[in-house]
Amino acid sequence: EVMLTGERYNVQRLPFSHVSNDDIAFFERIMPGRVITNPEELKPFNVDWLKTVRGCSKLLLKPQTAAEVSQVLRYCYERNLAVNPQGGNTGLVGGSVPVFDEIILSTALMSQIISFDKVSGILVCQAGCILENLNQYLEEKGFIMPLDLGAKGSCHIGGNVATNAGGLRLLRYGSLRGTVLGLEVVLADGSVLDCLASLRKDNTGYDLKQLFIGSEGTLGIITAVSILCPQKPEAVNLAFLGCQSFTQVLKTFTTCRAMLGEVLSAYEFMDDKCMELVKKHLKLSSPVSESPFYVLIETSGSNSTHDEEKLNNFLEQVMTSGLVTDGTVATDEKKIKASHHFPILKSMLWSLRERITEALTHDGYVYKYDISLPVGKLYDLVTDTRARLGQCAKNVVGYGHLGDGNLHLNITAESYSHSLLDAIEPFVYEWTARCNGSISAEHGLGFKKKCFIQYSKPKEAVFLMQRFKAMLDPKGILNPYKTLPSSS
Amino acid sequence: EVMLTGERYNVQRLPFSHVSNDDIAFFERIMPGRVITNPEELKPFNVDWLKTVRGCSKLLLKPQTAAEVSQVLRYCYERNLAVNPQGGNTGLVGGSVPVFDEIILSTALMSQIISFDKVSGILVCQAGCILENLNQYLEEKGFIMPLDLGAKGSCHIGGNVATNAGGLRLLRYGSLRGTVLGLEVVLADGSVLDCLASLRKDNTGYDLKQLFIGSEGTLGIITAVSILCPQKPEAVNLAFLGCQSFTQVLKTFTTCRAMLGEVLSAYEFMDDKCMELVKKHLKLSSPVSESPFYVLIETSGSNSTHDEEKLNNFLEQVMTSGLVTDGTVATDEKKIKASHHFPILKSMLWSLRERITEALTHDGYVYKYDISLPVGKLYDLVTDTRARLGQCAKNVVGYGHLGDGNLHLNITAESYSHSLLDAIEPFVYEWTARCNGSISAEHGLGFKKKCFIQYSKPKEAVFLMQRFKAMLDPKGILNPYKTLPSSS
Repeated sequence: EVMLTGERYNVQRLPFSHVSNDDIAFFERIMPGRVITNPEELKPFNVDWLKTVRGCSKLLLKPQTAAEVSQVLRYCYERNLAVNPQGGNTGLVGGSVPVFDEIILSTALMSQIISFDKVSGILVCQAGCILENLNQYLEEKGFIMPLDLGAKGSCHIGGNVATNAGGLRLLRYGSLRGTVLGLEVVLADGSVLDCLASLRKDNTGYDLKQLFIGSEGTLGIITAVSILCPQKPEAVNLAFLGCQSFTQVLKTFTTCRAMLGEVLSAYEFMDDKCMELVKKHLKLSSPVSESPFYVLIETSGSNSTHDEEKLNNFLEQVMTSGLVTDGTVATDEKKIKASHHFPILKSMLWSLRERITEALTHDGYVYKYDISLPVGKLYDLVTDTRARLGQCAKNVVGYGHLGDGNLHLNITAESYSHSLLDAIEPFVYEWTARCNGSISAEHGLGFKKKCFIQYSKPKEAVFLMQRFKAMLDPKGILNPYKTLPSSS
Repeated sequence: EVMLTGERYNVQRLPFSHVSNDDIAFFERIMPGRVITNPEELKPFNVDWLKTVRGCSKLLLKPQTAAEVSQVLRYCYERNLAVNPQGGNTGLVGGSVPVFDEIILSTALMSQIISFDKVSGILVCQAGCILENLNQYLEEKGFIMPLDLGAKGSCHIGGNVATNAGGLRLLRYGSLRGTVLGLEVVLADGSVLDCLASLRKDNTGYDLKQLFIGSEGTLGIITAVSILCPQKPEAVNLAFLGCQSFTQVLKTFTTCRAMLGEVLSAYEFMDDKCMELVKKHLKLSSPVSESPFYVLIETSGSNSTHDEEKLNNFLEQVMTSGLVTDGTVATDEKKIKASHHFPILKSMLWSLRERITEALTHDGYVYKYDISLPVGKLYDLVTDTRARLGQCAKNVVGYGHLGDGNLHLNITAESYSHSLLDAIEPFVYEWTARCNGSISAEHGLGFKKKCFIQYSKPKEAVFLMQRFKAMLDPKGILNPYKTLPSSS
């Protein structure tokens, strides 16, 4: 069993009230049958997906409406009870599970689609909708979600917004800060903030919703989301390529951006260690010959002939110039030739990249780092970390969203060890800070990274964040022990 | 001369200190030669571009660095002196000029480009850089600014960010909330907040910069901006079309979005009244036969052959189906046939749309409304307003960014009159609120619209905004009388 977070990290419980039988009775009255106290049922909600942090909450609530969330928070605020909001529990930094006995407030039953407008492409839905379900719903109507990530099958849109999730389509459709048009949020004291606008442009006062995007449930609980969805592309093509060096990966990217232009929708890379792990643990096979680096390129466009022509021109250029040594493509042209193999090929190519996280969990305990860096230096961090750790680590691998300057650096070991952690941290953070990078590109700070915020933000900024937190949640009941270092 | 704002709108001056000779001596010491007190020199800084509001500031400061801005604000905060930040003074809601004797702090001398990275496309520059200059600088390097607007020749990037400017490229490149990566801001008490990151992704804590984007100088003074710039498109094509009804404008848009897809970069519309005004006051001529509505479509892409093929297919479709009755195009193909006429044709077509604002100012006093609405209802507001005002107005015209659901409703009259204003307001705002629209899509609230915020935001949201203002600027010295209604 996973060690309790409080013990492993030697954390002090803050003086919140303890849940009493009276409290449980109150919650039963407002949401009968949706108040869970059975320890067995609570188990998966107390531990993260990576099995690295564990809380000991004795109470799980499953509200269905913002009104219920409001009632719960008003009561908790009054009683000084701490609350841990939880979506799909797919977070990677320990932000989604309790540290101690915080009440878990799950959005699992808030999964209604409220409206979708086919003219504007604006979707309004509750926070607990699963990303993949939303995407399927939209695809039937000729649209897609503006974000996509490996955890799509379980993550909730509310959690995506609360953590400002990045993912695989950011390169093309931009961040949630541009695509989220409105939010409904319940504040710590139970008041409901209705900023659920469905307008592409609105400059009436300060954009309050932005403060809640990426606040990891520490400033309010997102209960509904309004989001701008792009049209479903007519044509989606993939190329999976092998490169002999990281320099060639970079040069291929520059060429790609120039030649694919507006149809480029993903530029992902992985090193040979990643390929080894997905082969070994997931029995996937590589479609190209062994190379030190692999690149996955996706195009999405409105005209398949044009897109394939662009892709073919690009491939010819990088193959003849020697930037790429081997490659395979999945285009709509191929689809016509071998229709029933085609979707399999596409999803197989994406699997190689998307299932790295999963393969890593089979390799042992995983130390995860999610770093933004100037793209030219992206892989140096992997090389330097590998050299530093030597035999202490089982595997040191690098992959990520190269097009966004975002590296996922992962280190595996047989089991968790304080001494290995000390060898990695703050080394990785100091390295990142020297390059003016971010120690969390898209995962957030959660529980595990909150003490390292100063490597990416000046102290005046952290101080201001703490003032916002104190203003919006003066008792600190919302997702305590997360995101910000304590202000004292 | 323009009537003083305080008198026309019967505003009470707040109890700020008055600028003394000692104050002027202090400023002269920190920025010698850049402290302007000559009333003649001050005149253009006291009145807005539209000549509708006028303040009576006796002091203009022209800092060159964030450190100077910091010194100024620390002093003003201490002395309780009100400050009006000013960029290019191109605002349309009275946000950029003083209401009374606020000290004008101009960013005109903060016009340094700090850095540009060709790999990532990230530009870092001071707040006073003129938008058009930045765009020219970038074009030489194969990039463009992600925003473009009619005022580009004079507006400052700092002002663009402070007002969350929208403009002509938003449809393609998204809002500043997605493209602005970092800001340097001086707070009311003079402290400098350095969030000038140059990273595409950064999830370390709350995104403080978002609060300053669109806060119209009321929460802090933006001194530098980091912004993600798209590659300069290889091919830019324009089409100028005539439609017989607004329904046809809408159908043409739907067709256009489907057929032009990812290369569509602007879909602008204007009514026949707008065309009359640009013909009459600016001597421009229409390239197509007289129609009730005109549409300007721009494509930007990486492959001119592909883009022209898409555009031609689209044009054939809308012409043969009768959605469009007349049209002209400026494509790169034409450029080859008649090289030196080509840039003239393009800029001529854009002029028809971009210079409407200018033509309106020649028509008399202009009442300006900048509304977001569900796109299907966009023009009904123009029709209803025209019917309501009848002979009281000289002209009631509608144009705007149809692709973003953004209407510019403008009403002209021989001169300003309270009674005409009463006939328009709150009628226009009530109409907008009934459709859940925004009473300010992109112009902001400034001085003129601040009291109408409740038509687009619930009172809980306004209250929260007031708390943010009170927290960041407890004495209220930054751009007073603007953006928010007073909290008492």
